[in-house]
Amino acid sequence: MTRWAPDARGRLGQAAVDLFTEQGFAATTVPQIAERAGLTTRTFFRHFADKREVLFAGDEIPQTAAALMREAPEALDPLALVADRLRIVAEATFEGRRAETRRIRAIIGSDDALRERDLRKRADLAEVTRRGFEARGEDPLTAALAADLVVTVLHVALDRWLDDPADDDSALPLADVIDDVLAAFGALLLRRGPRR
Amino acid sequence: MTRWAPDARGRLGQAAVDLFTEQGFAATTVPQIAERAGLTTRTFFRHFADKREVLFAGDEIPQTAAALMREAPEALDPLALVADRLRIVAEATFEGRRAETRRIRAIIGSDDALRERDLRKRADLAEVTRRGFEARGEDPLTAALAADLVVTVLHVALDRWLDDPADDDSALPLADVIDDVLAAFGALLLRRGPRR
Repeated sequence: MTRWAPDARGRLGQAAVDLFTEQGFAATTVPQIAERAGLTTRTFFRHFADKREVLFAGDEIPQTAAALMREAPEALDPLALVADRLRIVAEATFEGRRAETRRIRAIIGSDDALRERDLRKRADLAEVTRRGFEARGEDPLTAALAADLVVTVLHVALDRWLDDPADDDSALPLADVIDDVLAAFGALLLRRGPRR
Repeated sequence: MTRWAPDARGRLGQAAVDLFTEQGFAATTVPQIAERAGLTTRTFFRHFADKREVLFAGDEIPQTAAALMREAPEALDPLALVADRLRIVAEATFEGRRAETRRIRAIIGSDDALRERDLRKRADLAEVTRRGFEARGEDPLTAALAADLVVTVLHVALDRWLDDPADDDSALPLADVIDDVLAAFGALLLRRGPRR
C-alpha cells in the first residue's frame, strides 16, 4: 500500500515532502517537485497554489471540516459532536500515516513562514467549525469555545501521537489519544468544580 | 486621566493608534508616528522594533505572562490559576481601555499581515504559559491544555467585552466576562459527563 494515492495530486505531494526533507523547504522549487513526480508545473498549479500549500492540503481542511459539521447527527451535543467528528478525522486522514505526518510537521517547524501559515490554517479551521456550530443552533459563546476545543484537542493529540516512541503497530491509535486528551481537558475544567 | 501614560512609549503608542485609525495602517510611517508624538524616530526604535509592534506591545505580553506564572500562589490548581491570573490581566491591562482596545482590534483586523502577527503572538503566549505550568510541576498534557485554555478564554472574553453594546459604565467588567466564559467552557466539557 502506498502512502499517497497514485494520482497526480498524491504524486506531487509525495515528491514535495521527499524533496523538502532531502534538501530543505526553501531550496525546493515547483519545477523540481513536478519533475520528481513525472508531471508538469502546469499540473502542479492545477492542484496547489504554491509549494507551501502542498503541506497544508490547500483548502481541503476547512472544506472537510465544513462538510463534517453539516453531516453530523442532529442529536449530538457539542462535546459528543467534537469527539465523534475528531474520531472520523483521525481515522480517515491520519491513521496509517504517522511517519509522513511527522515529516510534514518537521518541515513546517523548520521555517517561520510555514509556522505562520500553519497558525492561519488553524484559525481558518476554528472559524469554519464555529460557523458549523452556530448553524446547528448553538449560542455564539458555546460555538466559539467548541471550535477552539476542536483545534486544541486535534493538535495536542497529534503531537502526542507523533511523539509516541512506540512503533506504529503498538502505538495508541490517534482516535484513542483524542479521547484521552478530551478526558484530560474535562478533568482540568472540573477540578475547580467542588470549590465553587 | 489620559488613556496612555505620558511617557515616550505611551505617547508613541497613542500617536500610532490615532494615525492608523485616521489614515490606515499601511499608509502610516514611523517618522509620522514619531512626529505626531513630538519625538524622534530614534526614540521610536528604542521602544518598538517596527510599527506593527506598537499594536502588540512588543515582548511585553509573553514577559508579563511568564512573570504572572512565576508569581502565582503555589496552592492553586491549574484551573484556579487560570482564573486568578486572567483576572489580574483583565484589571491591570484592559479595564478602562475598552475604546482603545476596540480601535487596536479594528486595525489588526484590517490587515492580513497584522492578523498573522496576532496569531503568532497568541501562539507565543500559549508557549510561555505552557512552560509556566510545566515549571509548576504539571504534567505536559495538562500544561498544554491549560495554556491553550488561557489563550482561548482571554480572546473569546475580550471579543465579548468589546462587542458589548453597553457603555463603559454599565458593561460587565472584563474580569467577570472571563469568569462567565470559563464557566461556559466547563459546561461544554461537562455535558458529556453523565453519558460516559
